[in-house]
Amino acid sequence: MKAGGYRRSTKGGLAASALILLLALGPQRAPADEVTWRKVDPANLAFMELREGQVVIELNPVFAPKTVKQFRQLVQDRFYDGLSFYRVIDGFVAQGGDGSDLGELSEVPLIDAEFELDWSADLPFTSAQKRDLFAPETGFADGFAVARDPDKEKIWLTHCPGVVAMARNEDADSSRTDFYIVIGQAPRYLDRNMNVFGRVVHGMEVVQAFHRGAPGNDGIIRDETAASRIRTIRLGSDIPDEERPDVYIMDTGSKGFEDLLRDRRNRKQRFFHHKPPEVLDVCQVPMAGRLTK
Amino acid sequence: MKAGGYRRSTKGGLAASALILLLALGPQRAPADEVTWRKVDPANLAFMELREGQVVIELNPVFAPKTVKQFRQLVQDRFYDGLSFYRVIDGFVAQGGDGSDLGELSEVPLIDAEFELDWSADLPFTSAQKRDLFAPETGFADGFAVARDPDKEKIWLTHCPGVVAMARNEDADSSRTDFYIVIGQAPRYLDRNMNVFGRVVHGMEVVQAFHRGAPGNDGIIRDETAASRIRTIRLGSDIPDEERPDVYIMDTGSKGFEDLLRDRRNRKQRFFHHKPPEVLDVCQVPMAGRLTK
Repeated sequence: MKAGGYRRSTKGGLAASALILLLALGPQRAPADEVTWRKVDPANLAFMELREGQVVIELNPVFAPKTVKQFRQLVQDRFYDGLSFYRVIDGFVAQGGDGSDLGELSEVPLIDAEFELDWSADLPFTSAQKRDLFAPETGFADGFAVARDPDKEKIWLTHCPGVVAMARNEDADSSRTDFYIVIGQAPRYLDRNMNVFGRVVHGMEVVQAFHRGAPGNDGIIRDETAASRIRTIRLGSDIPDEERPDVYIMDTGSKGFEDLLRDRRNRKQRFFHHKPPEVLDVCQVPMAGRLTK
Repeated sequence: MKAGGYRRSTKGGLAASALILLLALGPQRAPADEVTWRKVDPANLAFMELREGQVVIELNPVFAPKTVKQFRQLVQDRFYDGLSFYRVIDGFVAQGGDGSDLGELSEVPLIDAEFELDWSADLPFTSAQKRDLFAPETGFADGFAVARDPDKEKIWLTHCPGVVAMARNEDADSSRTDFYIVIGQAPRYLDRNMNVFGRVVHGMEVVQAFHRGAPGNDGIIRDETAASRIRTIRLGSDIPDEERPDVYIMDTGSKGFEDLLRDRRNRKQRFFHHKPPEVLDVCQVPMAGRLTK
């Protein structure tokens, strides 16, 4: 340390300082006593194991029934075991599979486009934001970020970080096996164009640690030994109860969750010297799940 | 593989398939021949070395002159060397320093609030989006994502992924030493409330690999040995020319960059069966720099 330079203080300040920041920035997660949590059906869980750790995906058969059906079959056939994330672009997506999406090279059936649903009053919907930049309205349906167009009576899963969707070629119906996980700022321009069929509910920090491809090569990883590799994927329903963690996600239909959205939309803490606009980015609401056992 | 299950194809499809996806999703980066690149002044570069790799930060003395001045002094005093990222919340921020932001515990001077600038016609500005969700208009100024309010004649750096800003306590003027890097969906509600003073131009995948804290503990890492630790930070201007990489960023005032924004706003590729809304999220434009040497 140079004379006249700044002296570093003791470590004693950490806990108190961090606490103040914590209070000031507001809780990133809802307090347990305000939001109710819902246990995820094990049939809708996929546990993916890699050298980097465990990633837990919640599948969404309501919005993407055919895609989920095929993915489940592929998982049970151990199709993905040993394959790698071969295209990983920092700030965009991590794409895994065997890279065989070209029709001639695979015997796996193609999947029909499942880009959006007709709106139905039966679908749960908790509004987050009207006149969102990319859609007339955004919100949450059973823990998933969604957007809808009330005039055209359509609803779809939005491309938020952690979303899992099938890659495809130019044809709408050309999804097959390879999938990507969104790892950066939400690429919402892909909304209503891809078979989104799940989201990571645990282990996003594992996905974020995946080996990246070179930007100049658009993320394709040439050195296969460097790529992050899937050891195995197992469906929750194929894991014995005593071995399977329970996964809980916030009940986005609960009063507590609505309160959480309201508090994030209208921040009253004295920390904010400039009051933030009273809007919500549906992709900026922390939605991680909880694992127990 | 089970009988009747899906057969995995050969690896032969990878290159062709990936190429199609690449074309289809549109270039994440601008082709080199369309956008001009600008060399960053070494005085505005900070090279941070960690076990996980190298992170290069571009400082912004135009928007945050006092903060940059203090940060440069701290770097030259080797204040940060050996300190860790002690609060890392996946999808939010990685915060590093000595955790001594409480006034009584540090001899380092406080920094005045530098939350926004008065608008000036001298400031470069390339418009990205009018009526953005969080601001009347967003755009780019010398490689940095910004937002502005023409009526109030203010302009500020936006909280996009990769942004570097000083932590603070409740007082506006309570920044001092500890800083955070945004690692998740842009927390734009913090805009105009923090001393944003730089952005990561290289090595975001290194930041994304930082050890996370437990969500239940709001990201505070209790086990110091697990935390990602700064070996050293050096200013570009303190590194001999022959050792220092050159860093180039896109010239956001160039015609090529305006074309890039236009092409991202108005996607015409046949890949898009549902044409995306003609809008741009200023934080979703890839803005990584290039290192040479």
